Amino acid sequence: MHPYTAPLADIRFVLHEVLDVPALYARLPGSDAATRELIDAVLDEGARFVETVLAPLYQSADAEGCHFDPATGAVTTPKGFKAAYAQWVENGWGGLTAPESAGGQNLPETLGAVIKELVDATNLAWGNYPLLSHGAIEALKHFGSDWQKEVFLNRIVSGEWCATMCLTEPHCGSDLGLLKTRAEPGADGSFAVTGTKIFITGGDHDLTDNIVHLVLARLPDAPAGTKGISLFIVPKRKTGRDGVAGEANAVRCGSIEHKMGIHGSATCVMNFDGAQGWLLGEPHRGLMAMFAMMNSARLGVGLQGLGLMDRAYRCALAYSKERLQMRALGGPKFPEKPADPILVHPDVRRMLLTCKALSEGSRALALHGASLLDVIERSSDAAERKQADELLSFLTPIIKACLTEWAVEGTYHALQCFGGHGYIREQGMEQLARDARITTIYEGTTGIQAIDLLARKTLQTQGMGLKHMLTMIVEFCTAQTRNTALAEFVAPLAKAAQDWQQLTLEIGRRAGQNPEEIGAASVDYLFYSGYVVLAYWWARSVATADAGAHPDAFKTAKRETARFYFQRILPRTQTHAAAILSGAGNLMALEAEAF
Amino acid sequence: MHPYTAPLADIRFVLHEVLDVPALYARLPGSDAATRELIDAVLDEGARFVETVLAPLYQSADAEGCHFDPATGAVTTPKGFKAAYAQWVENGWGGLTAPESAGGQNLPETLGAVIKELVDATNLAWGNYPLLSHGAIEALKHFGSDWQKEVFLNRIVSGEWCATMCLTEPHCGSDLGLLKTRAEPGADGSFAVTGTKIFITGGDHDLTDNIVHLVLARLPDAPAGTKGISLFIVPKRKTGRDGVAGEANAVRCGSIEHKMGIHGSATCVMNFDGAQGWLLGEPHRGLMAMFAMMNSARLGVGLQGLGLMDRAYRCALAYSKERLQMRALGGPKFPEKPADPILVHPDVRRMLLTCKALSEGSRALALHGASLLDVIERSSDAAERKQADELLSFLTPIIKACLTEWAVEGTYHALQCFGGHGYIREQGMEQLARDARITTIYEGTTGIQAIDLLARKTLQTQGMGLKHMLTMIVEFCTAQTRNTALAEFVAPLAKAAQDWQQLTLEIGRRAGQNPEEIGAASVDYLFYSGYVVLAYWWARSVATADAGAHPDAFKTAKRETARFYFQRILPRTQTHAAAILSGAGNLMALEAEAF
Repeated sequence: MHPYTAPLADIRFVLHEVLDVPALYARLPGSDAATRELIDAVLDEGARFVETVLAPLYQSADAEGCHFDPATGAVTTPKGFKAAYAQWVENGWGGLTAPESAGGQNLPETLGAVIKELVDATNLAWGNYPLLSHGAIEALKHFGSDWQKEVFLNRIVSGEWCATMCLTEPHCGSDLGLLKTRAEPGADGSFAVTGTKIFITGGDHDLTDNIVHLVLARLPDAPAGTKGISLFIVPKRKTGRDGVAGEANAVRCGSIEHKMGIHGSATCVMNFDGAQGWLLGEPHRGLMAMFAMMNSARLGVGLQGLGLMDRAYRCALAYSKERLQMRALGGPKFPEKPADPILVHPDVRRMLLTCKALSEGSRALALHGASLLDVIERSSDAAERKQADELLSFLTPIIKACLTEWAVEGTYHALQCFGGHGYIREQGMEQLARDARITTIYEGTTGIQAIDLLARKTLQTQGMGLKHMLTMIVEFCTAQTRNTALAEFVAPLAKAAQDWQQLTLEIGRRAGQNPEEIGAASVDYLFYSGYVVLAYWWARSVATADAGAHPDAFKTAKRETARFYFQRILPRTQTHAAAILSGAGNLMALEAEAF
Repeated sequence: MHPYTAPLADIRFVLHEVLDVPALYARLPGSDAATRELIDAVLDEGARFVETVLAPLYQSADAEGCHFDPATGAVTTPKGFKAAYAQWVENGWGGLTAPESAGGQNLPETLGAVIKELVDATNLAWGNYPLLSHGAIEALKHFGSDWQKEVFLNRIVSGEWCATMCLTEPHCGSDLGLLKTRAEPGADGSFAVTGTKIFITGGDHDLTDNIVHLVLARLPDAPAGTKGISLFIVPKRKTGRDGVAGEANAVRCGSIEHKMGIHGSATCVMNFDGAQGWLLGEPHRGLMAMFAMMNSARLGVGLQGLGLMDRAYRCALAYSKERLQMRALGGPKFPEKPADPILVHPDVRRMLLTCKALSEGSRALALHGASLLDVIERSSDAAERKQADELLSFLTPIIKACLTEWAVEGTYHALQCFGGHGYIREQGMEQLARDARITTIYEGTTGIQAIDLLARKTLQTQGMGLKHMLTMIVEFCTAQTRNTALAEFVAPLAKAAQDWQQLTLEIGRRAGQNPEEIGAASVDYLFYSGYVVLAYWWARSVATADAGAHPDAFKTAKRETARFYFQRILPRTQTHAAAILSGAGNLMALEAEAF
């Protein structure tokens, strides 16, 4: 597999210029430590860590997978994972963005997001263990009592313990209202949690001595459906207010799944048999706390998509420069060689540029999303916080679903550039494709994200988040009106934004008459939105590059990639619009038996 | 994994009604045995064979894979493969379409194509062994000398021996002009073949005692490039004119590849070290003979795509009827159940209908292609043969590339219907996706098919094949002018055909000025063409269903699926047209260093 070199030049361009995060952190309370110099130093360290520690374990962990011992219920991670985790903890990466009060470094989420991209580009399976801890930190930070923070949060931040999210049960995945796991109150304020959870990432492993499970379950008096679900802290080893991790709790891994990819990530069936747990947050309000984890986890999964597609792109680019095959259609470009490198072929370029346009555009989009998290958490201006929250709520399903769908597409194209060699394990390309395949499923499938975007985040809010995004686009287009060098992007972007608004209104109108129009439009609307938002980031990237002190080659690359995006990718919106406007009829007419 | 039931109702509908093959065989010389009754009997037997013999081995073969013994170079196939092959031979399937003179049953290729779909739907890896034999039969039938037919063809037809195609070398895949394997003439009329071939499907295995390799190599006096390549018969065991398979030949499997999928199909590195071989056909004309194999193999790979997507669709449909999750957006459909089956959700239907529309449409397209083979091989009318040949040459890259790309898409959607359960090996859905991934690569990647379609089969022939296809479409539309029930399909089909023609002319005009426009348009043109051709088969399917004696449910299903296709899939042509018309500039501008 081609070695990984972190794309720091593009990351710095997005952070420092497109988003100008140093200026943001200079004004956000408690963030002034995050100067450009500090950010750059962290990036260099992060790149070194993933390039030297995680990347070398990528293929070996896939070949080896996790081991499960049925006699003890213990899971062993692939060779090297434990040592890599120890080094991660020692370097303080786990607490990068966590509050100082919990022992963290309090650095911005935007920086954490960059590090997440690098981790996932080099070792997605490994990256899932810290990802779950990051989610638990969010939940404990916002909903934990003082002693819970002291005992659990601080140890997760330090990396001493890992965490999980236990939602899914055999009969309930997307539909959490169906869940059956129950929690009986005990005399000492603890609860006895009983039930079976499946698809639990990191449910058991050997990276840490204790594992903090956050488990959704029902109290005895709970109302039915989603309004009767509470969240519990259930440690692998019984741990109470004194913070001592004692004997084994009544929770045990029953088996691990054999999956298409992410073999190094243990996906466990977890059996809770009256396990000691502690209520986290209020009774029956567990989903709210879980969503606090989930939004951060969804952004995280979007970053997984970004990391995978960027990695795949860079491998395919390197291969396309080396591999000699056929001559350019206009005549030999390298007559001294037996054939031309395949990068001369327009169709290979089409595949590579698709990867490049989608991944660089996605980077700006995802890091913008992460920067909104920082505004929400740190701004002293309530109106600014509210607006950032509305916009991020709207963008989260787009980031989660589009970046992962594009990762599936990007890893497809990148593998295809390798021809038959891409199908062989040795090159690592098929592993990237297999690993990418889970990202459109976990933390809510693309279909679930699409309903979240259209029903909850758009129609139910009267398009509040959409309005903020449209305002950003209109303001940008207005500011660039006289910039003739940008006209080829600004004009179609302004048109796309207008069409997006009209399309949304039309869907809303139809949904008022028939709610099935929402589901019938949702995934196409999600993609439509994603392509318009990416067009904005591409136009803005060109404007930023032009305005900055960059070599001509850099400016040209941004402009040409943007041109490719606007001319060859953005037209996909036409197909999505046609599908949306065709209505629900062509989906709903067929009786179940007639399929 | 859901059990497989062959989709015989739809297959019979396409064969007997849409294509009316019984009428075709009644008039083609030497085909009158292929009556409707006989075809139906063969279909029943074929379905029984794949359902009971091949389907049960699908998942176990993937888990086990092939075994390679470095000490002997011997490959062992997964448990059950050898017995299944023996039963295949015993039932006479291998010689189904082979000439009677070689011991075959001389049945039409269209029937062979249906059996191929069934085999690949149930066990793609296993199906690759007979596929290669089928290709070798084509080459030997057309180019073999009498003794070569006697010795090799007859034994491949009987199934006693298997065959391979040895083209690829480490440095040459798509670009066969670079190949280095050489053949030195010996005193006895044989040749000593030396070189290394890679990615050889079935290069070694335990299904048969002898394996007939068809190997591309250069004679000592060969011109450089593709005009200096000859084809040789190189048996695993030395076999001469007397037909006796003697001692081991100097050809040996050096290793087998570890691949993303088709684990039961042995992909071998083959080392030829002065192996005894026999020239097949004329010196330096090996590629022509190889293309005789390859066209049939390309149609075969298209059928693999069809089989995989149909299988995946049927599994996803069954799951979507069983799996209860969430309520319909318009209110509960099954209030007595804890949740509605996911088939009520519009987006699940969108995914299923995409699979259904692409696979049923593809079946008509692929079987039409196979029926053209029968016309080419059997018609006594030279003009009819010529026209069928021109049309099939044009359709072959469309069938190969579109059906396999749609298989990748279809297996994606089908897996997605399963949510997290689709990512687990147990359900078999991820295996279908992994297996499908090779089909857009081998026998020429999608990019290679696209160049073949646009450059060789369209522009170089002044659109001869395209004209035949357009004529079929126009004749159909004209005949249906007064059929108001079909207007919703006929009008957009006629428009699409017209646009297709205009687009082709425009590409031709541009290509005259800049040959890179061909490569820049090719894959989008391929998809554009595929979607228009499928629209034709969908419109024709509705017309045929309406005219036949079918239950209303059948007619409605065809009509509603066609409506879905026209309203939600056909608009993809807009995006492809936009990409094509955007020209080569946005692909070629970037310097290699600037990527």
